[in-house]
Amino acid sequence: MQGWKEYQEQNKQRFLDELLELLRMPSVSARSEHKQDMLACADKVKQRLLEAGADKVDIYPTAGHPVVYGEKIIDASLPTVLVYGHYDVQPPDPLELWHSGPFEPVIKDGKIYARGACDDKGQFYMHVKALETMVKTNTLPVNIKFLIEGEEEIGSNNLGEFVKAHKDLLKADVILISDTAMLSMENPSIDVGVRGLSYIEVEVTGPNRDLHSGVYGGAVANPITILAKMIASLHDENNHITIPNFYDDVQIASEAERAEMAKAPYDEEEYKKDLGVKALWGEKGYTTNERTGIRPTLELNGIWGGYTGEGAKTVLPSKAFAKISCRLVPNQQHEKITELVINHLKKIAPEYVEVKANPHHGGDPYVTPADSIEFKAASKAIQETFGKPPIPVRGGGSIPITALFEAELGCKTVFLGFGLDSDNLHSPNEKFNLFNFYKGIETIPYFHKYYAEMKTVRP
Amino acid sequence: MQGWKEYQEQNKQRFLDELLELLRMPSVSARSEHKQDMLACADKVKQRLLEAGADKVDIYPTAGHPVVYGEKIIDASLPTVLVYGHYDVQPPDPLELWHSGPFEPVIKDGKIYARGACDDKGQFYMHVKALETMVKTNTLPVNIKFLIEGEEEIGSNNLGEFVKAHKDLLKADVILISDTAMLSMENPSIDVGVRGLSYIEVEVTGPNRDLHSGVYGGAVANPITILAKMIASLHDENNHITIPNFYDDVQIASEAERAEMAKAPYDEEEYKKDLGVKALWGEKGYTTNERTGIRPTLELNGIWGGYTGEGAKTVLPSKAFAKISCRLVPNQQHEKITELVINHLKKIAPEYVEVKANPHHGGDPYVTPADSIEFKAASKAIQETFGKPPIPVRGGGSIPITALFEAELGCKTVFLGFGLDSDNLHSPNEKFNLFNFYKGIETIPYFHKYYAEMKTVRP
Repeated sequence: MQGWKEYQEQNKQRFLDELLELLRMPSVSARSEHKQDMLACADKVKQRLLEAGADKVDIYPTAGHPVVYGEKIIDASLPTVLVYGHYDVQPPDPLELWHSGPFEPVIKDGKIYARGACDDKGQFYMHVKALETMVKTNTLPVNIKFLIEGEEEIGSNNLGEFVKAHKDLLKADVILISDTAMLSMENPSIDVGVRGLSYIEVEVTGPNRDLHSGVYGGAVANPITILAKMIASLHDENNHITIPNFYDDVQIASEAERAEMAKAPYDEEEYKKDLGVKALWGEKGYTTNERTGIRPTLELNGIWGGYTGEGAKTVLPSKAFAKISCRLVPNQQHEKITELVINHLKKIAPEYVEVKANPHHGGDPYVTPADSIEFKAASKAIQETFGKPPIPVRGGGSIPITALFEAELGCKTVFLGFGLDSDNLHSPNEKFNLFNFYKGIETIPYFHKYYAEMKTVRP
Repeated sequence: MQGWKEYQEQNKQRFLDELLELLRMPSVSARSEHKQDMLACADKVKQRLLEAGADKVDIYPTAGHPVVYGEKIIDASLPTVLVYGHYDVQPPDPLELWHSGPFEPVIKDGKIYARGACDDKGQFYMHVKALETMVKTNTLPVNIKFLIEGEEEIGSNNLGEFVKAHKDLLKADVILISDTAMLSMENPSIDVGVRGLSYIEVEVTGPNRDLHSGVYGGAVANPITILAKMIASLHDENNHITIPNFYDDVQIASEAERAEMAKAPYDEEEYKKDLGVKALWGEKGYTTNERTGIRPTLELNGIWGGYTGEGAKTVLPSKAFAKISCRLVPNQQHEKITELVINHLKKIAPEYVEVKANPHHGGDPYVTPADSIEFKAASKAIQETFGKPPIPVRGGGSIPITALFEAELGCKTVFLGFGLDSDNLHSPNEKFNLFNFYKGIETIPYFHKYYAEMKTVRP
């Protein structure tokens, strides 16, 4: 409609080239050595927003990496959509498993391979190009604001403060985020919720120095062994989490809800084959979709201690470490769970060792009601470009800032994601299908159109 | 006697300077990047042996790092002592815990700080200087052979073949090794046994790639969690090792033997204070000395998997790894135990994961009878220079090659060690007391003297 498709078709190659340029920037927020790359990336985002038609774009410093804010305000009486995304990416490790450089994007079989291709440069950039499309065809139906941050992958630690300090600047009617996945292009879906997150790091100290495992082995507690025993105790034989009160606030899905969820296409054999595993693992009494959607989890994200190099070293180490994160569901609160987990780890630590546990970051779970006009506008946009309505699903990932957006800005968030679970987010060989990138750019303007229409006729 | 003390006093500083030069060579056998350093170190050992008075020194290549062989044969009718030592050292990691560079030796408070200061450059070099002392004072009472290898810290994988191929060259009456510790300088002791070793590495694979812990968390087995459960199951609540048949061949010490062992000075509060732990850990029913001497152990030497860098990464990793080693006691056999451990790990692996386990290296335990003339000569030498007889103890460490020496060369080994348990072997800030270094050089010639006397009058 309105020339969108034609404009996009004519500028297709440039849209892609611009994204590839962004993907070449190693904006790894977790690593201090990439501080300059982060600044350069924020600058690039600013430049692209201005080129796309934003009236005003500013880079706001924070205690960490800067926030990019941009806007195109056309009429104060129209609804305002705040697009949120992030220009930072996960660390690319382990590097040796990449088939091409994580920051040297290549197109292969219709897919863009690079760190951040999908999460989230490829996805937030669809919004930049959707803005351009509407501006250049004089069809923008709403006011648009952009909030593109640089700390999503490390917990958005400074974004809360920024949002609180700039409530007027960020005032909007709805928040639109493309940082999630669809079931497939044949089965388009919309996440009606994301899980919360509680991330901690634990350090177990045994002896005050690394020891010779022969001289002291058998007589002093090995922190690796103790840490392993502590980790092993966190799940029982049914893979329930054993931390007391962990499940207290979990909203129990009704049988009807579970029946509805069970309609989403899922092929267990395909799922296992894709992951290369003989058997699935998970909490007894729940399906895979439930385990990743409506149930909380506790996962080990990393473990290290002692000698991990080539060959053999007969050391009994002084320390062992683990990174542990929980995914949370309504109505769990990340601060409460973080405290529960930390206290539990300290409590189960035997007298042989000293245990420190510190929170990394967290966020609360979030749900978008499927009967809201926010969801309905997104649904209608997908119906328009995919030819069928999206399946509402509960996503397993986390976008910790969404609960805060609702609390501070008082508006709902819509997750209009175009990724796929197979996009290797946070893994080597992250990718984003060209089809999905272009489909996103095609679909997003329809969200704005239908949202403006629905919002205006709202009683 | 015979001018030894005077000669050593006059050459004290040079002895030390020569050792420091050796310690500056980063002869880390486990790391392929140190191959050239290993060759340079072998050359230096050769040069020093020749300077000390050896008639002939050769460097023998092996499939790994070379062996240095040297000899001083004065009279075929005299007994021959084969001195064994190693010029390779443990990797220096973790580097950040060293107070000075591991290969930049410093003398502080009468101690030499450097990787290899005690294990084993400082200790084998005492023998080189003892040889020099006896040669220069024309008092050598035996023939001496030196076998200084470069792969002790990685399991002496190629030494067995070398020994088998050079039985005539290595023919001796006794093997003398300084690679162990004394209880203290006030309580000199001799190890009458060393434990055997079985070292393996285990790899647990879950999904075929690193996954997003939100998207897949809760639905697929996390290899870190599974590895932790496997490790946790290897010791029961009494810290007995749970692997079936593990203890089958363990020689049970008699009550009389245990009573004898209990006489060794040991202060539990001092031991805990030195290690900085509130409580000791170990197999129920045994004392610390028994746990590190006459009982086998299973220790975790390293563990790694997932994201171990700065900050937080929400990954569910594909793989987790551990390095595990067992210390063995008579009459356990390392090959049998290695097989037991590997098979057990594979057996307890749940269907969710794939487990690979591979042997690194190993060696059998060894005991020197306290009523042998080999032990008696060492005992008398210590009585001579320390003014009191040594306490016989069972050492916790391993010198895997000793069992092979006995099998192939048909002679006993004496462990005449001058280190201390507090020397930080295999740890940051390894050290060797200057007092011990010089005491060793002073004592060793007496071993040769008394051994020659006892051997000659042997019926």
